Amino acid sequence: MFADKPAGKTVISLSGGMDSTGLLMHLLAQNCEVFGISFNYGQKHILELERLKANIVYLKTHNIDINYDVIDLSILGKLYSSALTDPDWEIPEGHYEQDNMKQTVVPNRNAIFASIAYGYALSIATETNEQVSIALGVHSGDHAIYPDCRPEFYEAIHKAFAIGNWDSDKVDLYLPYINGDKHTILKDAEASIDKVGLDFDTIFKNTNTSYEPDELGRASGKTGADIERIEAFIKLGRKDPVEYQASWEELIKNNEA
Amino acid sequence: MFADKPAGKTVISLSGGMDSTGLLMHLLAQNCEVFGISFNYGQKHILELERLKANIVYLKTHNIDINYDVIDLSILGKLYSSALTDPDWEIPEGHYEQDNMKQTVVPNRNAIFASIAYGYALSIATETNEQVSIALGVHSGDHAIYPDCRPEFYEAIHKAFAIGNWDSDKVDLYLPYINGDKHTILKDAEASIDKVGLDFDTIFKNTNTSYEPDELGRASGKTGADIERIEAFIKLGRKDPVEYQASWEELIKNNEA
Repeated sequence: MFADKPAGKTVISLSGGMDSTGLLMHLLAQNCEVFGISFNYGQKHILELERLKANIVYLKTHNIDINYDVIDLSILGKLYSSALTDPDWEIPEGHYEQDNMKQTVVPNRNAIFASIAYGYALSIATETNEQVSIALGVHSGDHAIYPDCRPEFYEAIHKAFAIGNWDSDKVDLYLPYINGDKHTILKDAEASIDKVGLDFDTIFKNTNTSYEPDELGRASGKTGADIERIEAFIKLGRKDPVEYQASWEELIKNNEA
Repeated sequence: MFADKPAGKTVISLSGGMDSTGLLMHLLAQNCEVFGISFNYGQKHILELERLKANIVYLKTHNIDINYDVIDLSILGKLYSSALTDPDWEIPEGHYEQDNMKQTVVPNRNAIFASIAYGYALSIATETNEQVSIALGVHSGDHAIYPDCRPEFYEAIHKAFAIGNWDSDKVDLYLPYINGDKHTILKDAEASIDKVGLDFDTIFKNTNTSYEPDELGRASGKTGADIERIEAFIKLGRKDPVEYQASWEELIKNNEA
C-alpha cells in the first residue's frame, strides 16, 4: 500500500518538529526534489515554524534550495477545540500513553494535512507527468494517542483519495517510519545529515517538539512528545542541542527514573 | 452509511452555488442549528461568496442567524493546477459529460473540504456532547466529471475519518441529494423556502453557479454547471432570478435545441 522509496519529486509535510525534520534529511540524502508545506493551524507552539524557517535558511547556505510554503489554517484554532490551540486550556503533562494526552488531539488534523498535500502532489504529477510521493514523518510512538498517525488510517484515506481523483496512480504515500519510533528517525537522520554534509546539532537545534516552550523558547521537557524526544537522544547517545528549562543531566536523570 | 436526516446541529459547506444554498434552505426548514463554512480556494468565480454573504444578511432580516466562517485556502490557487484557479487558463465550455470539463477539477478539493468540516463537526460534538451532522449538497449531476462527488468516495473518506478520530460515532454525513440532481435540489428548496417563509427569487438571485461570470456578475450560461442549472429551472417551470448575458428566452431556446 505504501511506497518503498520516495519518487524523484516529493511533497513533505514539515511541522518543524524532529520527525519531519529527520524525514527531510532522509529525502535530501536520496536527492529528492522537495516540495515542503507547513500548516499554521493556530497551534500555541508556533515557534516550531520559526525554527523550521531557520533550517531552510541554513540549507540555503549549503546550496540546498527547497520549495516551501506555509498554509494558513489559523482559523481552525477558533473553530476547533483542542488543548493545542485553545489559549485557556492548559497542556497536560505526562507520557503519551496517559489518557489526558487525548486533550492534545486536534480533530481530524492529519486528514486535513494529508488532503492538502495530496492535491498538491497530484497537481505536480499532472503538470510534470512524473510520479510524485507524499512523505510523512508519522511513527509508532504516536499511535496510542493519535489514531490519525496509525497505518490503518493512512491506508483508508489513501484509498479514499484514489477513489476521489483522476490519475491517482501518479501519487503514492511514503511513510518510512510508520513502524519505527523517534529513535529510528534520529538514527536515520544522523546518517542522512552526514551524507548530505550538514551539521547535526544545527539541524536539530532548529526544531521544536515541545507543546509548551517558555518565552525564551526553551522546552519544558514534560509533555508527551518532549519525553519521547529526550529518550530518543539518550538512546542515540547524543545530547539534544535544543534548549530545555532543565539541564541535560537533570533530564537524563528524570527519564531514567 | 449516510444519515437519513440531519442532526440538530449541522455543519454545512456553503459554496454560494445553488446546490448548497438549496441544502441550507432544507436544513432551516428542519429547524437545524446551522454551522456554515465556505472555502476561498483561489476560485476565479469568488463572486459566489459575495452572493452567499448577501443571502446571510437577507436571512438575518428574517431573524435567522447562522454561524458562518470563511476558510481562506487561497494559497491553493498558487500551489494547485486547475482551470478554476489559474488566471491564464480558460474555462472550457460545454456539457459536463465532455472530457475537456476535467480541466475544471481542483485536485482533491472535496476531500479537503470534507476533512475540515469533519474536524469542525467533531469539535462541536465533543464540546456539546451532541450528535452533529455534516451536510453536503453533492448530487449525481456532478458524478461523471468529479469523482469526489460520488457516493463511493464519501463512503471511503467517511470510513477513513472514523478510523482516524476518537468519538467518530458522534459525527455523521448527510448527503440528501447524492442520488438526485439539480432539479431534485431546486424542487426541495422551493418547498423549504415556502415553509421557512422566505422569498425564492431573492434566495436564488443571491447565488452564482457560473465558472465565468462577466464583470457585471452575469453568468455566461455556457459552462457545464450553468447548463445544468438552466435545465433545472426550466424543468421546475420557473425563470432563474440570476442574471445571464443572454435573455431567459434565448437560454430556454438554446437548451431545448
